[in-house]
Amino acid sequence: MRTAKAETLITELAALLGPAGLLTEAADVAPYGEDWRRLYNHRPLAVARPANTADVAAVVRAAVAAGVGVVPQGGNTSLVGGAVPTVPDSQLVLSLSRLRTVRAVDPLELTLTAEAGVTLQAAQEAAAAAGCLLPLSISAEGTAQLGGILAANAGGNNTLRYGNARDLVLGLEVVLADGSVWEGLRRLRKDNTGYCLRQLFVGSEGTLGVITACVLKLAPRPRAVAVALCAVPSVAAALALLGRLQNFDASLLQAFEYMSGEGVALVLRYLPDTRLPLTTPAAHYVLVELATPRPDTALDAVLEELLAAAMEADVVTDAVLARSEGQRAALWRLREEHSEAQKRAGANVKNDVSVPIARLPELIARASAACAALVEGIRIVPFGHLGDGNVHFNLVQPEGMDPAAFLAREGALMEAVCAVVRDLDGSFSAEHGVGALKPPLLAAWRGGPELALMRQIKNALDPLGLMNPGKLLP
Amino acid sequence: MRTAKAETLITELAALLGPAGLLTEAADVAPYGEDWRRLYNHRPLAVARPANTADVAAVVRAAVAAGVGVVPQGGNTSLVGGAVPTVPDSQLVLSLSRLRTVRAVDPLELTLTAEAGVTLQAAQEAAAAAGCLLPLSISAEGTAQLGGILAANAGGNNTLRYGNARDLVLGLEVVLADGSVWEGLRRLRKDNTGYCLRQLFVGSEGTLGVITACVLKLAPRPRAVAVALCAVPSVAAALALLGRLQNFDASLLQAFEYMSGEGVALVLRYLPDTRLPLTTPAAHYVLVELATPRPDTALDAVLEELLAAAMEADVVTDAVLARSEGQRAALWRLREEHSEAQKRAGANVKNDVSVPIARLPELIARASAACAALVEGIRIVPFGHLGDGNVHFNLVQPEGMDPAAFLAREGALMEAVCAVVRDLDGSFSAEHGVGALKPPLLAAWRGGPELALMRQIKNALDPLGLMNPGKLLP
Repeated sequence: MRTAKAETLITELAALLGPAGLLTEAADVAPYGEDWRRLYNHRPLAVARPANTADVAAVVRAAVAAGVGVVPQGGNTSLVGGAVPTVPDSQLVLSLSRLRTVRAVDPLELTLTAEAGVTLQAAQEAAAAAGCLLPLSISAEGTAQLGGILAANAGGNNTLRYGNARDLVLGLEVVLADGSVWEGLRRLRKDNTGYCLRQLFVGSEGTLGVITACVLKLAPRPRAVAVALCAVPSVAAALALLGRLQNFDASLLQAFEYMSGEGVALVLRYLPDTRLPLTTPAAHYVLVELATPRPDTALDAVLEELLAAAMEADVVTDAVLARSEGQRAALWRLREEHSEAQKRAGANVKNDVSVPIARLPELIARASAACAALVEGIRIVPFGHLGDGNVHFNLVQPEGMDPAAFLAREGALMEAVCAVVRDLDGSFSAEHGVGALKPPLLAAWRGGPELALMRQIKNALDPLGLMNPGKLLP
Repeated sequence: MRTAKAETLITELAALLGPAGLLTEAADVAPYGEDWRRLYNHRPLAVARPANTADVAAVVRAAVAAGVGVVPQGGNTSLVGGAVPTVPDSQLVLSLSRLRTVRAVDPLELTLTAEAGVTLQAAQEAAAAAGCLLPLSISAEGTAQLGGILAANAGGNNTLRYGNARDLVLGLEVVLADGSVWEGLRRLRKDNTGYCLRQLFVGSEGTLGVITACVLKLAPRPRAVAVALCAVPSVAAALALLGRLQNFDASLLQAFEYMSGEGVALVLRYLPDTRLPLTTPAAHYVLVELATPRPDTALDAVLEELLAAAMEADVVTDAVLARSEGQRAALWRLREEHSEAQKRAGANVKNDVSVPIARLPELIARASAACAALVEGIRIVPFGHLGDGNVHFNLVQPEGMDPAAFLAREGALMEAVCAVVRDLDGSFSAEHGVGALKPPLLAAWRGGPELALMRQIKNALDPLGLMNPGKLLP
């Protein structure tokens, strides 16, 4: 049952939006209220599914006129509750999923122009069809939409080489909080005409306006790929290997993923059809992927030689190079099944943190010690994008412990990890953003003049506070 | 002679700043009022030369308390009057030149941390001393300082590969308009904790705050370089060559510079010790530079093969590869002496424009026709960063014409070029910014919701309008 006030607002919105029928019926709105991780579930007041930018602007104007908060929603794959209402029956979900046209792909300019509701995968496919690479890849790419990906400044496996979503944006079209449209769909590589507005909207999590279309940079498609799994004696050695590869040719380095011995052991134990292609288990592993568009490079031989030199220098203790597409997939699977293996092993506590790259060994040593001191037998499984300084510092319950008892320590464990990260000048959210989940952390870590600046910008661009209320800012 | 009001303000400022003696004496302030191109010359009310961030903040607070505008000044090499007062005897020049410490260079993290007053050249040298490359290079690098370079989002020859100044910034320290300090000197590759403030200050030309220090990304130092001069039959063919090189390996492409036949002819004519190392003059040239950190690549052979294939496809009609450091320098000189040759040939009109890359042939054809129709015998010498869509569309007076008569047509010529650029969705300022010179163009080109957004941001962050008054915003 909606309240009388909610019914009145729906009637007002419907009247303002006219006969275009942009509002979903009451019975249909509930699924739009639940987030991907099922942390939040508040029924939206209504759901609007406009089909073009002009209608998005009309929806925003109507919501503003009615004083209703607007929650932009793409594929709804936020891991911090960024795309769902924060209170029941009072916020309008604005779904972008009908804006799903790839408008243009230009292989010479290396640009792709697409609407906000295009899934990342559809955009990748459009780029590939034109012989190019859209160099952004995340787990949720089949569902996540470009608008949300830009609003959240998504990262992923290949940021080491190509940057975050932010680094791929040349132009944006945005419906602003007053319902006007900023037509900033530029395709220029150089343009110094005023403030860089696009970078303000990228990563603003829908709190300053609604991204409706974008121009993204593409890259030439790699023609050769080489993948190896390396056992390394320490995190410091992993970094030394990173330095060697970067120094040889940073532009070859497509991925540099860290896995702990314990993390790989969990994968091998819980995913039956996996195996370790090395003779002995190690305490630390790195998955290296090189790639190049050059057709003339024997990349396997290049990687083999680099790893042989690293072994001679005791930076790598053992390594295996994939000799086929199937072997490449098998090596990547050890990394990609980390979350699944951890889930099967029991209750989990997850931290998406980053530090300056040189401080990674200290992060892993100190945070591991802090967590081990809090929960005896805890399984510490940091893994992820070492080349970006970004580690998913995940924690799995001890064997046989009651999951609820472990999760009762979640707050203490996250605090312990965060204290180390903060001391190392790191970030409490490397990739996932702030959303509805972490505004208190933003207040604690980015307070003072920084938070004041953010509030000044928010108040200037959304003075009524109706754009994605309750998100990002504390 | 200063006015009584000016004297009062100086006394107030001196009192607020205390005995630290940050103010330069009246006799010394005049040179700070003149810009690089000598377009502006207004004596500052006073000049402050603080030596650290805390003193910069004290200067800003004092200026705000006295209601005096603050003009941040680095190397004062702005080409649009961005770093000098816009009116006489009423604005405080805040020189950053005493903040000149390179605080850290980390070859593994590939970061450099430095203060605003460090010259670009000094920063390049510090990076090189650590075996790295600071991949930003502009003509004024011996004088221009990092703070100004970031405030102006400088471009240059290597942006094709490494991006503009904006793309190199990981962290900033900024003294805000209220005299508080935003300590954002992060060294993180991934950090999604709120709005991307650093990108708002980069390119804001000192109108939102004073950059006092920065963290920049470095790149591995190239170990092999190959340079070739190519004659091409058309601008479209130049773009086809660009496509071929990008498709082979975009990460090798260090520079891709266009020169017109007329531009090269002027260099050969006015710079006595230059020569064309091809058998016949051509209508269009491209200077290609490839570079790689890989020690195992015979880059000359790679470039030779690529050019041979391009010649077979009639994309290139003739080419010469530099076989020594001396030959490389000689080829680059043909490009670098363009401004000098044009100056010696008479009066010049300069346009720093950009368009989407695919539209470059149309830009050059249409803008050339428009200018030829305006001034008979005009010498049309577009050149520059073709790979970025950025052309310096320069115009030299007809032989024997009175320079003043030619310059009387400057407005009409610039308007003719701009009309074509705008029609092609381009930019009136690719690299140089807006400064004091081009706010009317900003109003004309970026009006409506875009200009409204910029004003909202300016009013929010600098409500008194005291940060670099008269710059950027119309």
